[in-house]
Amino acid sequence: MTLRTPLTELLGIEHPILSAPMAGVAGGALAGAVSQAGGLGLVGGGYIDPDWIEREWAALGNARAGIGFITWRLAEQPAVLEAALARRPAAMMLSFGDPAPYLGRIRDAGVLAICQVQTVADAKRAADAGAQIIVAQGADAGGHGASRGTFALVPAVVDAVPAVPVVAAGGVGDGRGLAAALSMGASGVLVGSRFYATSEAQARPEAKQRAVEASGDQTIQSSVYDRARGYAWPSAFRLRTLRNRFTERWHGREEAMLETLDEVLAGFGRAVETGDLDEAPVVVGEATDLIRDVPLAGDLVRRMVQEAEMALRHGVRCIEQEET
Amino acid sequence: MTLRTPLTELLGIEHPILSAPMAGVAGGALAGAVSQAGGLGLVGGGYIDPDWIEREWAALGNARAGIGFITWRLAEQPAVLEAALARRPAAMMLSFGDPAPYLGRIRDAGVLAICQVQTVADAKRAADAGAQIIVAQGADAGGHGASRGTFALVPAVVDAVPAVPVVAAGGVGDGRGLAAALSMGASGVLVGSRFYATSEAQARPEAKQRAVEASGDQTIQSSVYDRARGYAWPSAFRLRTLRNRFTERWHGREEAMLETLDEVLAGFGRAVETGDLDEAPVVVGEATDLIRDVPLAGDLVRRMVQEAEMALRHGVRCIEQEET
Repeated sequence: MTLRTPLTELLGIEHPILSAPMAGVAGGALAGAVSQAGGLGLVGGGYIDPDWIEREWAALGNARAGIGFITWRLAEQPAVLEAALARRPAAMMLSFGDPAPYLGRIRDAGVLAICQVQTVADAKRAADAGAQIIVAQGADAGGHGASRGTFALVPAVVDAVPAVPVVAAGGVGDGRGLAAALSMGASGVLVGSRFYATSEAQARPEAKQRAVEASGDQTIQSSVYDRARGYAWPSAFRLRTLRNRFTERWHGREEAMLETLDEVLAGFGRAVETGDLDEAPVVVGEATDLIRDVPLAGDLVRRMVQEAEMALRHGVRCIEQEET
Repeated sequence: MTLRTPLTELLGIEHPILSAPMAGVAGGALAGAVSQAGGLGLVGGGYIDPDWIEREWAALGNARAGIGFITWRLAEQPAVLEAALARRPAAMMLSFGDPAPYLGRIRDAGVLAICQVQTVADAKRAADAGAQIIVAQGADAGGHGASRGTFALVPAVVDAVPAVPVVAAGGVGDGRGLAAALSMGASGVLVGSRFYATSEAQARPEAKQRAVEASGDQTIQSSVYDRARGYAWPSAFRLRTLRNRFTERWHGREEAMLETLDEVLAGFGRAVETGDLDEAPVVVGEATDLIRDVPLAGDLVRRMVQEAEMALRHGVRCIEQEET
């Protein structure tokens, strides 16, 4: 059993599930497992470490995969785009910045161009610029995002770009979210947090365990980690993580943090090294309520499809025709 | 045709659609029209003006309706609870505050107790305290809300309170949202913004027209209107409206606003009186992209059910069994 949509047709995949290109977390093992189970895995180009990307692409072996980049970061290193296209990914996803300067080159290379957007206006711009698939990402998402919620954003984007398959992202934690996305007219889902807590994800086991235990009530969207690390994120985008001692200490006190930045960075570095998750981030979103185990990524793909089928069949069973 | 769920059974209604008790907007005409079309309309108890409530309840005529209160405001005027129960509403909804002190009295009066919550933790508390229906309201909503997005909140609340029907709220603007909510395991939807732009809503025609024209990209959650009016809202809740000159001027500058409060209030009063919507609020949420006309509320109920049926049937058509 599977779910056939314009997305599965366009990408030549079995199930309409994409794993998000989580920076430092979505390597070749995760992306490959998702693709081999019938979805499409995206390797996380992230902040662009060419050695990391080369190693993770090699780790894919024979599996197909796409790759995702942070657009404003790619702008600083355009050569990386060419290197990535030379690997012939199944698709290239750009998010967080203006994709227009790159879409022509991606399409000319015969690679499918996916644009992730956070507003209806950006969806229209991306479609006009040549995006072949549009991911509508709501603020419910873990990692970087903007302010609009997934629920109202997805149908609005579906209406705004009628010629382009739309993928829902931000808050999709199980097959019910996939079913809901399809009901809204989306052609599939892009899933981050739920894949963060799979065996193949390059997150610490303790971080995956926190995702299992946490409620979505405990997340926060903040700029404190980005500012501490000196990343020049555009102000529209913030990072959703679990709340912890670090976010409680610094969120809303960014200026004070920057005054003691050397100390903050040293502490942050130690926390990352030792896995102190009260200081280092656990990058999951509001769907973390729905994370209750750490399965293999391929098993998760299959489970989500089965859950989605159940959810869709449950929905139509609510329909009752009047007696005539 | 209709959609039958535990919510329709419990409330004795035909369609699983509740209209939100929007303060000053959801009077007897709107609530009655929604109920007569087969949903359930909720009169907006809002900031509790007993004369307004009495008049609007009378305007219902023979139509059934529920009533909704702002819980922290009700705590200041408990006599209003008794007066409302004496009118024998079909249901009473409490939101924004601890409902526990009131649920016993509501249930003893034979009135169904609906609690609107914004977190999984509050959903559990409300269920433990005796809520018979729980509305899971995401921050995509217009009017007051908290921070969690609707998309991931709804399935998490469904799982957290398995014995109680859950209603999705925040971002539901058409039948696709209803279909998505049912796919997620909710039993129905509570809809505000979309009913704000109906003939019977007590909003200015110009405000309804702004809702028709606006994109959800243009809303903001802020405390500026509440602080200007001196309402003592708990800090967890902010008001989502369209961005306008007033929010652009004061959001993030609340202290400066309070320093010139007399002047601000005088200007606000004039704006409300003259319908100057660059200064007075248009209280709609992110679903405003989906608002394209100002229909009769009853026609909207029927349209949403038809759209939901189409969306649910579209969803199951994606299911493809493997050939055997």
